[in-house]
Amino acid sequence: MKLGELAAQLSCTVEGNPNVEIRGLAAIQQAGPGELSFIESEKYARFLKSTRAEALILDWRTHRPDIPCIRSDQPRLAFARALALYYQPRLPVPGVHPSAVIGTEVRLGADVHIGAHVVIADDVTIGDGAILFPNSTIYSGVRIGARTVIHANCAIHERTEIGDDCILQSGTVVGTEGFGFVPTLEGTWHKMPQSGYVRIEDNVEIGSNTAIDRPAVGYTRIGRGSKLDNLVMIGHGSQIDDNCLLIAQVGLAGGVQVGRNVVLAGQVGVAGHASIGDRAMVSAKGGVPSDVEPGTVVSGSPAMPHALWLRTSALIRRLPELFQNVRELQHKLALLQRRLQIGDE
Amino acid sequence: MKLGELAAQLSCTVEGNPNVEIRGLAAIQQAGPGELSFIESEKYARFLKSTRAEALILDWRTHRPDIPCIRSDQPRLAFARALALYYQPRLPVPGVHPSAVIGTEVRLGADVHIGAHVVIADDVTIGDGAILFPNSTIYSGVRIGARTVIHANCAIHERTEIGDDCILQSGTVVGTEGFGFVPTLEGTWHKMPQSGYVRIEDNVEIGSNTAIDRPAVGYTRIGRGSKLDNLVMIGHGSQIDDNCLLIAQVGLAGGVQVGRNVVLAGQVGVAGHASIGDRAMVSAKGGVPSDVEPGTVVSGSPAMPHALWLRTSALIRRLPELFQNVRELQHKLALLQRRLQIGDE
Amino acid sequence: MKLGELAAQLSCTVEGNPNVEIRGLAAIQQAGPGELSFIESEKYARFLKSTRAEALILDWRTHRPDIPCIRSDQPRLAFARALALYYQPRLPVPGVHPSAVIGTEVRLGADVHIGAHVVIADDVTIGDGAILFPNSTIYSGVRIGARTVIHANCAIHERTEIGDDCILQSGTVVGTEGFGFVPTLEGTWHKMPQSGYVRIEDNVEIGSNTAIDRPAVGYTRIGRGSKLDNLVMIGHGSQIDDNCLLIAQVGLAGGVQVGRNVVLAGQVGVAGHASIGDRAMVSAKGGVPSDVEPGTVVSGSPAMPHALWLRTSALIRRLPELFQNVRELQHKLALLQRRLQIGDE
Repeated sequence: MKLGELAAQLSCTVEGNPNVEIRGLAAIQQAGPGELSFIESEKYARFLKSTRAEALILDWRTHRPDIPCIRSDQPRLAFARALALYYQPRLPVPGVHPSAVIGTEVRLGADVHIGAHVVIADDVTIGDGAILFPNSTIYSGVRIGARTVIHANCAIHERTEIGDDCILQSGTVVGTEGFGFVPTLEGTWHKMPQSGYVRIEDNVEIGSNTAIDRPAVGYTRIGRGSKLDNLVMIGHGSQIDDNCLLIAQVGLAGGVQVGRNVVLAGQVGVAGHASIGDRAMVSAKGGVPSDVEPGTVVSGSPAMPHALWLRTSALIRRLPELFQNVRELQHKLALLQRRLQIGDE
Repeated sequence: MKLGELAAQLSCTVEGNPNVEIRGLAAIQQAGPGELSFIESEKYARFLKSTRAEALILDWRTHRPDIPCIRSDQPRLAFARALALYYQPRLPVPGVHPSAVIGTEVRLGADVHIGAHVVIADDVTIGDGAILFPNSTIYSGVRIGARTVIHANCAIHERTEIGDDCILQSGTVVGTEGFGFVPTLEGTWHKMPQSGYVRIEDNVEIGSNTAIDRPAVGYTRIGRGSKLDNLVMIGHGSQIDDNCLLIAQVGLAGGVQVGRNVVLAGQVGVAGHASIGDRAMVSAKGGVPSDVEPGTVVSGSPAMPHALWLRTSALIRRLPELFQNVRELQHKLALLQRRLQIGDE
Repeated sequence: MKLGELAAQLSCTVEGNPNVEIRGLAAIQQAGPGELSFIESEKYARFLKSTRAEALILDWRTHRPDIPCIRSDQPRLAFARALALYYQPRLPVPGVHPSAVIGTEVRLGADVHIGAHVVIADDVTIGDGAILFPNSTIYSGVRIGARTVIHANCAIHERTEIGDDCILQSGTVVGTEGFGFVPTLEGTWHKMPQSGYVRIEDNVEIGSNTAIDRPAVGYTRIGRGSKLDNLVMIGHGSQIDDNCLLIAQVGLAGGVQVGRNVVLAGQVGVAGHASIGDRAMVSAKGGVPSDVEPGTVVSGSPAMPHALWLRTSALIRRLPELFQNVRELQHKLALLQRRLQIGDE
């Protein structure tokens, strides 16, 4: 595709030669002849000089006159849209593979694809255009929305409802029994039945080998447009509102409330029943013992305001020096007192 | 079911109208007409006033005279028992699905259910009433006890023995080769054969996408009545005694010894060959580098006594102030010395 | 096997009776009659006196004259080699199970084993002697090398290439779409297409339920001879060089660069685009926010040089005492000033 054509498809303008041929896209450091790249953050500005890209997507302030460019207010978003013109994941054609095992009262929408060795229990509803990759297991009573893609080897348990346009990566498990056990006087654990539900709303993406539990009563909920990465744990009854980002290996205990547009970075843990306000962020490895205010950024374990964490993290490295300084102060003061023949009193 | 009937089944007494109809159970904040709830800890006492529950399970000290209640010494346990009267997970009927692939010398007990596309290798024993959900894989030589339930897409490897009345949630892997590699002089890693065994005793529950390894020699063991949550990692040769609780994303390195009734909270990590005494607890995200005394609670990474951790965590937040105070002390003392014309000596 | 025979196979010499019969191998604490064990590190030297092993593998400095021993410069390596003479995991014989579903243009090498209910999409290449255990799913276009073993219930996605002599434990997912989302002005997340590749080189081992993502552009790479444990997360575009060890539950964000012979201990997290130099080590639970120098050992979160971390970890426990000391200094100094009628000025 020529650069000008590509820009037109993105509704963007070109500076420089619109006739260069774009064969593919690449990161700024790797891009070479025939490849389009982009620069967004300051972090990558240093690559602007050295890049061998054929063309660039740039914001309005960035300049490299000898390389033709597409101008965009959001270069990364434009890059994502351009990339979609060159690559779409291979999706299978509609149809039910003969090796799939499908129970009674299963309602399959139009144009669904049910892959080889998929097992669907009784009383399941699958929306139009949904795709189930091989070896997944759908328990009885599950509802899956239209155009939702479930990759290989997933297990979707009873009492789960998944909305439209969702993507579940491989190996993910949704709707399993929450981890509820009541201590007995004999020192054993009595299993709390897990009679609740899981609701995954529209346009949610869930990574690989993630686990989402259903609660004893009530709902576990993943709000519309939220994205969960790989190996994430969502405890029973946790509620995640719309457009959140939960990065890999995050763990929510039971009954956590997460507001809208919250970002939980990798390996964050949130204690049971904590509430995280809208647009809050927790930095990687943060441990959240209790509520987080909307719009704040917290870090560390136990989590504290990010700016405070930056300072205390730097100061912890200086603890040896601090202890030394205090020892010296003690020594000097004692000496002074002795010289002056004045005691502590 | 009427409240009186329900109480009778729990062997509990009713205060107030025993004829109210209980249609279901709910958490105290969500419970409405027709629903039974419970209050246990102080934490929920604030909801006692506002709840719209039809009836409550209460201990003997808690009062809300206008709502009929069931009295119990252990309200949460009574709630769990009541919930079991209203909900039981759907379990499939006995039988072997024709799509299951079953090897030679496989001994299936009475009334087992082998789901669609389950694969059982040779020389496997499965006890009476066991249930294997679809798409699970059982390697050769495995023994699975009576009434044990293995959910979908699990893999149980050779040299594994699972007791009676266990539950394995979906996607869990048991008995894989431990992570044993010996460094060579060439800088490569030589694989240590993993010839040991995994023994999961009776009444163990294991969450989704958890991984339990077998060791080079000897056993990995999960003791009777212990419960493991989702995404837990049990390294080769670790031994967990009875009635432990390992919450989500806990990781045990190799050769860890865990006593009875130990609780490891979410995302805890335990270093190789550490020993954790009976009834000890490690708080969420704790990092345990070495042995933990029985009955103690430790927190933080590296873990320390919980009370000390609470204090140090609070003091870390005050480090900026402490550094400032020490600088001021240095300044004042220097000034004083100058005024007095007395040096450090 | 007799000890002398065993030593000969390891090209080692025997001290003591070469005719004792070795029935099996065991750890030094558990070894009994008929069993061979080894002692390597100082840590186990205390067991040398009490062991009941029939024979031992020892280095040249360690002595226990009444037990016959095999001498080796690397006792652990010799033990691994000896163990391999007694145990090899059961591998299935070549052949394609009739229940496997195999697409078009699939090239199977000589002597491959394709297990029951394996699903292989179109245009897949599988090398000579490769073994795919049951219920695994191979997406279209994947290439798997010779003698590579893929255990049960794995999913290998499009755009993935796996080298020769690799082992993937059960439940592992390779090549899924990276977690790439671009924020929009409306507060939603726009999916970045993930058109890149995953390359797993020869002789790599990957644990159970691990997840390795493919990137938007470019490659995710696991270098020759590297070993990944269970529940590890490799973000899109991360590059791991040869002979690294990534222990359980490690998480790499996107675009991380890991040098050769790096060891990342359990539950370590590495931030996006950080670079870890050759032979560096990160201790368990370490959080790596930025680059790590080659050959260094770092610990803690945020990570610092290991020696500093040891000191600061010890000093953190003494913070209550330090705060108390500073308060006392303030008090004493104020008193002194008052006595001397000298102010701060």
